[in-house]
Amino acid sequence: MAALRSTLKTFYWVPFVRDLPSKRTYVNVHVRDMNRTFAIGVDFGTNSVRAVVADCLGGHLVGTSVFDYPSGDQGIVLEPGNPHLARQNPADYLDGLRASVAGALAAADETAGFSRDRIVGIGVDTTGSTPLPVDEHNRPLALQPRWRDHLAAHAWLWKDHTSAGEAAAITATAATHAPFLLQPIGGTYSSEWFWAKIWRCLNVAPDVFDAAASWVELADFVPAVLGGVDSPRDILRCVCAAGHKAMYSDAWGGLPPHDFLARLHPKLAALRARLYDRAYPADRPAGRLSPEWAGAFSLRVGIPIAMGGFDAHYGAVGAGVKPGTLVKIIGTSTCDCAVAPAAVGPRDIPGICGIVNGSIVPGMFGIEAGQSAVGDLLRWWVDTVCHGDDALHARLSDEAARVWPGESGLLALDWNNGNRTILVDPRLTGLLVGQTLHTSRSDAYRALIEATAFGARAIVERLQEYGVAIDRIACCGGIAEKNTLFMQIYADVLGHPMQIAGSPQTPALGAAISAAVAAGAAAGGYDTFEDAQARMTSVLPNAFVPDPTRHAIYDELYGMYRELHDAFGGRVSAFGGCGTLMKRLLALRDRVVADRSTRGAELAGA
Amino acid sequence: MAALRSTLKTFYWVPFVRDLPSKRTYVNVHVRDMNRTFAIGVDFGTNSVRAVVADCLGGHLVGTSVFDYPSGDQGIVLEPGNPHLARQNPADYLDGLRASVAGALAAADETAGFSRDRIVGIGVDTTGSTPLPVDEHNRPLALQPRWRDHLAAHAWLWKDHTSAGEAAAITATAATHAPFLLQPIGGTYSSEWFWAKIWRCLNVAPDVFDAAASWVELADFVPAVLGGVDSPRDILRCVCAAGHKAMYSDAWGGLPPHDFLARLHPKLAALRARLYDRAYPADRPAGRLSPEWAGAFSLRVGIPIAMGGFDAHYGAVGAGVKPGTLVKIIGTSTCDCAVAPAAVGPRDIPGICGIVNGSIVPGMFGIEAGQSAVGDLLRWWVDTVCHGDDALHARLSDEAARVWPGESGLLALDWNNGNRTILVDPRLTGLLVGQTLHTSRSDAYRALIEATAFGARAIVERLQEYGVAIDRIACCGGIAEKNTLFMQIYADVLGHPMQIAGSPQTPALGAAISAAVAAGAAAGGYDTFEDAQARMTSVLPNAFVPDPTRHAIYDELYGMYRELHDAFGGRVSAFGGCGTLMKRLLALRDRVVADRSTRGAELAGA
Repeated sequence: MAALRSTLKTFYWVPFVRDLPSKRTYVNVHVRDMNRTFAIGVDFGTNSVRAVVADCLGGHLVGTSVFDYPSGDQGIVLEPGNPHLARQNPADYLDGLRASVAGALAAADETAGFSRDRIVGIGVDTTGSTPLPVDEHNRPLALQPRWRDHLAAHAWLWKDHTSAGEAAAITATAATHAPFLLQPIGGTYSSEWFWAKIWRCLNVAPDVFDAAASWVELADFVPAVLGGVDSPRDILRCVCAAGHKAMYSDAWGGLPPHDFLARLHPKLAALRARLYDRAYPADRPAGRLSPEWAGAFSLRVGIPIAMGGFDAHYGAVGAGVKPGTLVKIIGTSTCDCAVAPAAVGPRDIPGICGIVNGSIVPGMFGIEAGQSAVGDLLRWWVDTVCHGDDALHARLSDEAARVWPGESGLLALDWNNGNRTILVDPRLTGLLVGQTLHTSRSDAYRALIEATAFGARAIVERLQEYGVAIDRIACCGGIAEKNTLFMQIYADVLGHPMQIAGSPQTPALGAAISAAVAAGAAAGGYDTFEDAQARMTSVLPNAFVPDPTRHAIYDELYGMYRELHDAFGGRVSAFGGCGTLMKRLLALRDRVVADRSTRGAELAGA
Repeated sequence: MAALRSTLKTFYWVPFVRDLPSKRTYVNVHVRDMNRTFAIGVDFGTNSVRAVVADCLGGHLVGTSVFDYPSGDQGIVLEPGNPHLARQNPADYLDGLRASVAGALAAADETAGFSRDRIVGIGVDTTGSTPLPVDEHNRPLALQPRWRDHLAAHAWLWKDHTSAGEAAAITATAATHAPFLLQPIGGTYSSEWFWAKIWRCLNVAPDVFDAAASWVELADFVPAVLGGVDSPRDILRCVCAAGHKAMYSDAWGGLPPHDFLARLHPKLAALRARLYDRAYPADRPAGRLSPEWAGAFSLRVGIPIAMGGFDAHYGAVGAGVKPGTLVKIIGTSTCDCAVAPAAVGPRDIPGICGIVNGSIVPGMFGIEAGQSAVGDLLRWWVDTVCHGDDALHARLSDEAARVWPGESGLLALDWNNGNRTILVDPRLTGLLVGQTLHTSRSDAYRALIEATAFGARAIVERLQEYGVAIDRIACCGGIAEKNTLFMQIYADVLGHPMQIAGSPQTPALGAAISAAVAAGAAAGGYDTFEDAQARMTSVLPNAFVPDPTRHAIYDELYGMYRELHDAFGGRVSAFGGCGTLMKRLLALRDRVVADRSTRGAELAGA
C-alpha cells in the first residue's frame, strides 16, 4: 500500500457572471421566503473528492473543498506490470468525505447569511461503474486487516479493464441465451461494468468474493454511509448505476435473471439475492443523515440524503439538462446527456446504448451517449506524436484558429479509442485523409477537433431523428470551459449555439440540486428538479454562435465525414471492403503480436 | 542575380567492394587488350554538377569532382513570393562543366595507368525537362547582357511549376483535338514539361520568347556545347527528353502536329520548325569534342560525345538496367526504370506514363515509372510533423525496426504528393488508418515506409502483368545506399531481393558508359551498352533478402493496401464515394482558399 499522503485544498466563493433566469423559468419557480437555505453536493471523481455548499436560491457555491485521494498514484491503486488494473482504497472515500465536507462547510462559515442549520440536504455523485465488496455491516472489506492489502477487495474503479475476458463472455452468453439483455446496451457488455468486475473477482480472488456479503456501487455506498445504513440489504440503489451498468430493467423484473447469471457462474446467481430487487430514481431520498455524521459536521440530524448518481448524470443536472436541452460534458472523452419525458420518451434509438427510465432525473428517460476520445485525441497528437506539452496545445490552437474550415484539405475520423455512439464499436480506429507534403501539425490538430465535432453532430442528428428534442446545447467539462477554438468549431459544425454552464463544478452542483429536491419545498428546498435547476443552474452570457459561412462549409465536410463514417464503420454495404478493414488490421495485429510472443527471440530483428 | 560563389570539391578514387561479374557476363565481353581506357561522365544535378573519370575495364572511378552551382539558393534561382518558380543560370552550367571536368581529370592524373590521351569519350546526363532559350548561335539568351536579369531567359529547371495553367490547357486541348498525344503520357501533360514551360514564357515574357532562336533541353545543350555546335538546328536531340517530355513520337512523325500547337498559340506552331524533326537514341554520338574544349581539358580532339540523357535514365544504365532488371532510384521521390526489347516490348501499359523507344538504351523500349514522394514522405513526417532532424530519422528508424509488420495496426497510402504510377493522378492525397491513442510517431514512420513499398510493389506487379520481365531489382539513390530498415522493408514487401548498385554515382557512371559505347570497341570502348554495363557496373555483395514470415504478413497488408488504393484511387466502382473523396476535399479547399482571398480581411478570425 502506498504511503498515506493527505492533501486538503479549500477554496472560497468567487462570484461569476451568470445569466438571469429566463422569464418562463421565473414563472415556474415557487415563491419562496427570503430565508436562504443551502445544500451540500459531494463529487467523488477519479483522483479527488470535491464538496460544495450551494445556495439553494441562486446556486452560488459558498464553500468548496477538494481532497486528493492519498492512496496509490493520484488516488489510483495500480499493479506493476498490469496496465489494465485500476483500484481505489475505500478508506480514501471515507477520509475524503469527512475532510471535503468539513472543508466546504468551514469555507461557507465565512459567508454572510450562511449557517449550518440552513443546510437542507446532502447529495452525492461518483464515478461509475465503481463497485466495491462490503461485509454484512456494509463496511468495505478492504478496511478489514485481513483484506487490506488485497487489491481485489478494494473498489474496482470505472477504468479498471482487467475483466475484458469476463465482459466478452457475458456478451457471448447473453447473445445466445438472453439477447434481450444486450438490446439496451448496444449489443456489448463492457469490461468497465458491474457484473464483469465482480465475476473477475470471483475468478481471480474467490476468497474475496466469498468474503463479500454484497457488492455496492460507490454511488450507492456513500449515501448509505451518511445514512448510517448498516446492512447491504437496506441500501437504496440508484437506477442510474443499476440501469446503465448492471443490466437492471423493469422489462425483466430487475437485475438479469437468475438463470442467466447461473450460466456465467452459480455463485453469481447466488449473489443476485444478496444485491437488490429494485433500483430507484432520485424521486426519494436515499436516507437521512445519521447522528454520527450530523455530529461530525454540526449539521441537523435527519436532513435528507439524495439518491446517489454518476458524476456525468449529476453534471448534466448541474448544467441544466431538461427536455430539449442536451448537456455535453467535454473532457478527455465526451458524455452527452439528454432527458425525454417518460410518457413520450424513446425506448430504443439505434446506436444509443444507454436509455434508462429515471436515470438522470426522475420521471424522464435518461439518455446517455458519448465519444470515447475527445481531449484524449488532441493529447495523443500533442503528447505522443508531437512530443509537446500544454504550451504546444496553445500554439497549435492559435495556428489552427487561422485556418479556415476546409482549407487544410484534411478530414479525420475520431475513432482512435473506438466509437461509443452511434456505431457502438470499441474496435474501430482512427483515420486521416488529405495529407500533402505541406500538411502541418496544426492542420492535423484542427482536423482532429473537427472530427470530434462531426462525431458530436452525428449523435445529435441521431437523437433528433428518433424524436429527442434538442433546442439548446449546454456544455461543461475542462475543454468546454477552456478551449474557445474547440467550442467555436463545435458551434460552426453543429450549426447550433454552444452554451457554457455557469458553474465550473456541475457534478457537485447537480448533487446539491438533488439534495435540495430531496429536502422538498416545505423544508426549504424544491418540489422538482426542474424548479431547482431553474434557480440553481445557469449558463455563461456569451455562447459560441455559429458563423453561417463556416457552417455551410462544414455541412459539406460533414457529408464527407459521414461517407467515411458509414464506409469504415461498416454500416453501408456498398463499402463492404472498407467496412471491415479496420477490424482486419486489428486481427492481423493481434495475430502478429501473439505469434511474436510465441516465437520470442527467434524472430528478433529488423 | 545572386552574388557569384564558386566552390570546387575534388575527390580521389576510393575503391569499394564489388561483385565479380557473373560467368554469363564474362562470356559476352569482348576480349580486350590490357591498355586501359577511360571515359568521362558529367552529371548535371539540381544543385551541382559532378564529373567522373571511369575506368572502362571495371567501371572504377579514378577521378571525381563536384561543382556547386553558385547562383541563387543552392543553384536554384528563385523569385520572392512565387514558390512555383525555379530557374537556373546557364552560366553555372558552363562554369560547372569546365570546373568539374578539369577537377575530375586532375584527380585522375594521380592514378597509375591513367593518362588523358586514354580518355575515349565523354557523356552527359542532366535533370529534365530543363529547357532553355538559345540564340541563333546556340548561346543561352541569359548570357547576353540584355537578358541577364530576366528570369524567363534562364533555364527552366525541372521543378519549376509556374506553368500549371498552360499544362492544364495543353491537356484539355489535346483531350478534345488530339487525344492520341495524351495516350503515352497517362492522360495528363505536366507543368514540369517542355511545351508548358515554353508556352508560359510566351505568355509572361513574350519578348524573351521572341528573342529565342530555339529552345533546347539541358541534356541536349551540354553535348552541343562540347561539340562546338553553333546553330540550334544542328543539335542532335535525344529521344529521352523528346519522347518523355515533348510529346515526340514516331507514331505521329515527331513533335506534336503543327495544327495542334497552333490551337495553343500560333507562335508555338511557328517554333516547331525551329526545333527538330527527329530525336535519336544513344546509338550514335551527339558530336565530337571541339578543339576548344579538347584544348581546355588537354583531351584528344574529336573524341565522341555521347547522346545526352536524363539523370534517371543514365542512373539506370549505371546501375545495370537491362531486360529483366528493374532499377529503382530511391531518393526524395523514386524513379523506376526498365527496358524491354523493342521487338517484343510493350507499347502501352495502363498507368505507366513513359514508354519511349530508345529512351534509356538504344534498341529497347525505355519504361519509366515512379512514386512522387518517398524520402519526401519521411521528411514530411520528421520535419513538418515531428519538428525533428536527421537524428530523429535515425531514432525513428531504430524504433520502427523493432516493430513487426502488422504490429502497429497502421496502414497508409503514400500519396501525399499524388500518385505518378499506376494511378497517374497528381491530385491524390495521403491517408493513414488504424491509429489508436497509443500509436507512436515511429509506428507512423514505419507505416509510411511500408506505404511506399506497397506503392513500389503495385508498380512491379503492373509491369509484370503486361509482360515486362523483372527477375532482378537493383537500387540506387540516397535512401537505397543509406537506409537499411527501408531496404529490408522493401525486400519483405516485394518478396524480392533488393540489390544495391555498386557505384554511389550511377548517373555519372551511366554517362561514362554511354561515352564508352559512343567510342566503340575499336576505339577502346564497347560495341553495346550491355557489354559496357557488364564490365562497368556492379552491385554490392550483400543484397537485402526477403524474410518469408514477414513477406507473408506483408502479402496480407498489401491486399488491404490495394483495397484502399483502388477505393480512394477511384478505380473500383463499388467504392464510388471514396473514389472521389480526395478530389472533393481538394475542390472544397480550393474554393475556400479562393473565397478567403476574395473576401480578405472581412472574414479574418477564428
